[in-house]
Amino acid sequence: MLMKAVKKLNKGKGVEITTAAIPEPGPGEVLIRVKVAGICGTDLHIFKWDEWSQKRIKPPVIIGHEFVGEIVQVGFGVNHLRAGQRVSAEGHITCGRCKYCRNGQGHICQDVKLIGVDINGCFAEYICIPAVNVWPVHDDIPDKYAAIFDPLGNAMHAVMVEPVSMKNVLIIGAGSIGLFAIPIAKANGAGKIIVIDPNPMKRDIALKVGADLALDPEDSDLKDKVISVTGKNGPDRLLEMSGSSSALCVGLDLLGNGGSVSLLGIPPNNISINLAEKVIFKGITLHGITGRRMYETWYQCESFLLNHGNLIDPIITHCIDIEDIENGFRWMEANEAVKVLLKII
Amino acid sequence: MLMKAVKKLNKGKGVEITTAAIPEPGPGEVLIRVKVAGICGTDLHIFKWDEWSQKRIKPPVIIGHEFVGEIVQVGFGVNHLRAGQRVSAEGHITCGRCKYCRNGQGHICQDVKLIGVDINGCFAEYICIPAVNVWPVHDDIPDKYAAIFDPLGNAMHAVMVEPVSMKNVLIIGAGSIGLFAIPIAKANGAGKIIVIDPNPMKRDIALKVGADLALDPEDSDLKDKVISVTGKNGPDRLLEMSGSSSALCVGLDLLGNGGSVSLLGIPPNNISINLAEKVIFKGITLHGITGRRMYETWYQCESFLLNHGNLIDPIITHCIDIEDIENGFRWMEANEAVKVLLKII
Amino acid sequence: MLMKAVKKLNKGKGVEITTAAIPEPGPGEVLIRVKVAGICGTDLHIFKWDEWSQKRIKPPVIIGHEFVGEIVQVGFGVNHLRAGQRVSAEGHITCGRCKYCRNGQGHICQDVKLIGVDINGCFAEYICIPAVNVWPVHDDIPDKYAAIFDPLGNAMHAVMVEPVSMKNVLIIGAGSIGLFAIPIAKANGAGKIIVIDPNPMKRDIALKVGADLALDPEDSDLKDKVISVTGKNGPDRLLEMSGSSSALCVGLDLLGNGGSVSLLGIPPNNISINLAEKVIFKGITLHGITGRRMYETWYQCESFLLNHGNLIDPIITHCIDIEDIENGFRWMEANEAVKVLLKII
Amino acid sequence: MLMKAVKKLNKGKGVEITTAAIPEPGPGEVLIRVKVAGICGTDLHIFKWDEWSQKRIKPPVIIGHEFVGEIVQVGFGVNHLRAGQRVSAEGHITCGRCKYCRNGQGHICQDVKLIGVDINGCFAEYICIPAVNVWPVHDDIPDKYAAIFDPLGNAMHAVMVEPVSMKNVLIIGAGSIGLFAIPIAKANGAGKIIVIDPNPMKRDIALKVGADLALDPEDSDLKDKVISVTGKNGPDRLLEMSGSSSALCVGLDLLGNGGSVSLLGIPPNNISINLAEKVIFKGITLHGITGRRMYETWYQCESFLLNHGNLIDPIITHCIDIEDIENGFRWMEANEAVKVLLKII
Repeated sequence: MLMKAVKKLNKGKGVEITTAAIPEPGPGEVLIRVKVAGICGTDLHIFKWDEWSQKRIKPPVIIGHEFVGEIVQVGFGVNHLRAGQRVSAEGHITCGRCKYCRNGQGHICQDVKLIGVDINGCFAEYICIPAVNVWPVHDDIPDKYAAIFDPLGNAMHAVMVEPVSMKNVLIIGAGSIGLFAIPIAKANGAGKIIVIDPNPMKRDIALKVGADLALDPEDSDLKDKVISVTGKNGPDRLLEMSGSSSALCVGLDLLGNGGSVSLLGIPPNNISINLAEKVIFKGITLHGITGRRMYETWYQCESFLLNHGNLIDPIITHCIDIEDIENGFRWMEANEAVKVLLKII
Repeated sequence: MLMKAVKKLNKGKGVEITTAAIPEPGPGEVLIRVKVAGICGTDLHIFKWDEWSQKRIKPPVIIGHEFVGEIVQVGFGVNHLRAGQRVSAEGHITCGRCKYCRNGQGHICQDVKLIGVDINGCFAEYICIPAVNVWPVHDDIPDKYAAIFDPLGNAMHAVMVEPVSMKNVLIIGAGSIGLFAIPIAKANGAGKIIVIDPNPMKRDIALKVGADLALDPEDSDLKDKVISVTGKNGPDRLLEMSGSSSALCVGLDLLGNGGSVSLLGIPPNNISINLAEKVIFKGITLHGITGRRMYETWYQCESFLLNHGNLIDPIITHCIDIEDIENGFRWMEANEAVKVLLKII
Repeated sequence: MLMKAVKKLNKGKGVEITTAAIPEPGPGEVLIRVKVAGICGTDLHIFKWDEWSQKRIKPPVIIGHEFVGEIVQVGFGVNHLRAGQRVSAEGHITCGRCKYCRNGQGHICQDVKLIGVDINGCFAEYICIPAVNVWPVHDDIPDKYAAIFDPLGNAMHAVMVEPVSMKNVLIIGAGSIGLFAIPIAKANGAGKIIVIDPNPMKRDIALKVGADLALDPEDSDLKDKVISVTGKNGPDRLLEMSGSSSALCVGLDLLGNGGSVSLLGIPPNNISINLAEKVIFKGITLHGITGRRMYETWYQCESFLLNHGNLIDPIITHCIDIEDIENGFRWMEANEAVKVLLKII
Repeated sequence: MLMKAVKKLNKGKGVEITTAAIPEPGPGEVLIRVKVAGICGTDLHIFKWDEWSQKRIKPPVIIGHEFVGEIVQVGFGVNHLRAGQRVSAEGHITCGRCKYCRNGQGHICQDVKLIGVDINGCFAEYICIPAVNVWPVHDDIPDKYAAIFDPLGNAMHAVMVEPVSMKNVLIIGAGSIGLFAIPIAKANGAGKIIVIDPNPMKRDIALKVGADLALDPEDSDLKDKVISVTGKNGPDRLLEMSGSSSALCVGLDLLGNGGSVSLLGIPPNNISINLAEKVIFKGITLHGITGRRMYETWYQCESFLLNHGNLIDPIITHCIDIEDIENGFRWMEANEAVKVLLKII
């Protein structure tokens, strides 16, 4: 039996809309019919075949890792899930037996496989995934939100690593994860939220989803404008979502003493930091953020979506048929789209 | 009335043993007769007149900030201290009214003055200091330990910023603070402790005060030797006490996923870090460490000295008369001394 | 020079509106002209001359401890405050030198004096208070909120002792502190908030300030109604604001495994608890909450009032002249008022 | 195939040494040959057939839940374990799919089954257990320690719920778990450790394993003796291991402001507490402690046993053949034994 699937078939730019055999669930696995998926920046890297993709991806592979769907079959030994359940899934397949996995830190398991990267992903009519990775979706969460538990979880993890309650937050980089972080921080008690991004459309969305101020990094009064909102101590928390070296330097400069940083944006190269002046004497803490906490972050996202889901609507700029995926990639490349959803059924 | 005092009198290398007027305690201050003081690496920087000193120090100033002594006079409004009390003191004079000071974070007050750096210090027969900075010394703690509450506190702060219980600890840099960190970590439940330092005398002391392994950074089997002690996940905590760029890179490389770093050594220049591979994907946390928590760290040091004080004896390599201070500096410069005490009475 | 003042003059029910000498600020103190004050449940206890008051209060004493006013004179040695500043003040006068005070835990200092209880309070035209207790009020916070930093701080302390982000919260007891806790928890990311109180007027206010459900403790379907809102695991956090033994038992019963309790209501007698079933096997944590963290809680309240102040309006049910204070007490006694403000200028 | 087994065969006092069929491992399970087991207080309750046992135990059942053994067979789908491995096991069989289990809080799973209580246990030649519960034992940990990971883990969990570093610790109840807590707390940096227990033999062991003071609860100078060791603020942490109502009251009375309590001893009845004076005004935190954190506590115990295992030797008072188990129970009943090991092979 064949299904529609978006594959990275060859080395080089682009993806193919093609077919693949419908997979069968092994022991401990479930087969899911995908309904809606989200395009991630990682998918765009693979589409563009950038340096990282060339090292990591071994074509052919079905890409995609954000989705919601319905279980159609459960494998041997899976007793707590059943066909017909609406589910999303954690895309990090961890070893389950190392110290990290046994200590509730599966997100830093050293033996992890990523769906849509290392193994076949969700831009297809069906996907097989271990039952332990499945997340049953609450009835009151619509598909458009359920499809993006994964990137919302990255933002949630970055925000929640230290309390934001009554803290002023600076977010650098307003891609989808940076933008998701705004309503998450706001709903969890952040004081003022300031966003820095060069793209006016993204700054505009930032303001729509709750930022108090959205600035262009080239703004010559950047520091004064930030201070006018936060008071003279500056922001208490920095969410670095851009991966830009200069952005991190600006952020550390603005950050108040005793502040903390969530590092989520991936810098392509080494970054040069004045640790003495910007980190040590200021008593700053930096947190490397990867993936989502399994499954604490998922429970947090569920609660957020139940109570504040509609706040993220302006970030979902497009919803298209899977056949039109190449348009989605083009819009993202041109900075005309933020989160693009794919309808698969 | 004149007193003996060690002053930085002029720009350029060296210090002078000279005299100064005995200070008088203003309102809220106390006058202390200094008995024993410790020479800090900071004092050596000032002696050598390095780049940092040239920017920060405005001669003439009495140097020194680690000491124990006896109160001889209390100023107006000081009701809870009395002449005759044996005391040490926190050398960071904070504003007391900013957000940091009012929140128990005086160590990152932005309006701090340092004794022996910005104002007259303790390498003298007498020192005046605000009563709020005074630390009454427990009867069971001898002067040789009471004189070095301050650097012991730096080590304590660096170790205690995250629990070390049953964690394997890697310490890079075996100066006095790096060495103090060894028995502190051991007494607080650290598993294995590994120290890296190029100096054989310091590595020898490291082993004497409880390190399980002391390695030369040039050791070609460095990584394997560390792993043989910690197991394959590597150390859980890194105490960076060297300020060396290459050392930090080695340390981040060895550190296990989810590990944490205390950054205390002051790098002279910017440091280049592969944040993606060494921090973000590994889920590492880095803590900038400055000063001591006021006064939580002091209570911790008191408890440590009462229960484990003798563990630090091998780190106090010399105890000399204040007149011989230049010898102390020379030995420290030549890496022949670690902690040098000065007898002042 | 005389001023108007509300004194507990004699043992027995009632208070007197009378006069007192305007106090003079000693060294380290400031004299404040009181503008608006709030009546606290503690003041009502003193008015009623209940068992606790009979043991604690030594008439004559000016009562009251929640207020906002303006500095009119600063004592010797007070350099960072000036006449004309609009201020509130922490009413716990702590020793400043014990382990708790030096560790940022002044709220549990064993040598504390309370204004309006142990020493003269703020239901008067003027009050003298140590400069360290003074809280300069942000320009954007109106007097009606600035007057009640103190009880808002109790609620803040109770809510913030553990994160409420995306937790379902059960609040038992909808007096002013219980009610303040609702918008504080909501603004800081609480999921669902359920309030239990026998008084319909207070339940009505609870719903107005953000509770999702407000229940009568006599409701026969109490448990089912709570579960219908929180899901089957029950609430994650319990704020016990009633001091009632049966309420605590109901709360512990409803609370989910691993949940936490803030105990703020003062039970008049011993309480009998099934620790094995309700605390130990469920892995519950209970926090005794007293006063406010100095001054972390004050910074949190400032941020809350700046960003969400208007949320508390329905809790301030009355604002009267100080001459009418006896009416205020009568309304509170009759459960017809919640927070009553007194205009003093 | 039959094996030797200790069963609770009938309602009423006693156990039977009898035979049972060797179990077969189902999918996801392993079969283990038991080498050494430990008798727990829970086993004694079952032996005595006390009130709790009468409600919980459904004979016939093989008792026992602390052990070390060797895997002899792995069930379908178990790929990461193999015959021949020396292992211990977590005795709480959790559902694995609830919020608690998915959040690293399996110890408070509401759908837990206990080996040796709800299902067949380890006082037998063989036991079957889910592979996820198996703990591979480090080569350097001898069987006598590996057999008691479980009760050591209870003590570890109780100690580590808040840092003990440089805190004075009061332990009430010197059964095996209370005694294990002494070297655990000491090795993790506790300042002074004081133990209260009526039994002189247990107090003697307490001193042998590191307590600074061991007191009889009937001692008329109890409070003064405690204060003489801790200083006037009293202990910082209380480990309640006795389940006695009066002991908890004494402990809360002695505990310093801001202190914390680990509640592990199971009170047979409701306990009456003066929450206002002993908990709320003192700012005390109480933690209900049940089971062990899966599997953080196990990693901590491994590290402790590797670095400090021999410290617990005086607590293991007896090691007998399984045939002599009734003697073990008699000695424990008579307070002549603490931890009794059973040799099974």
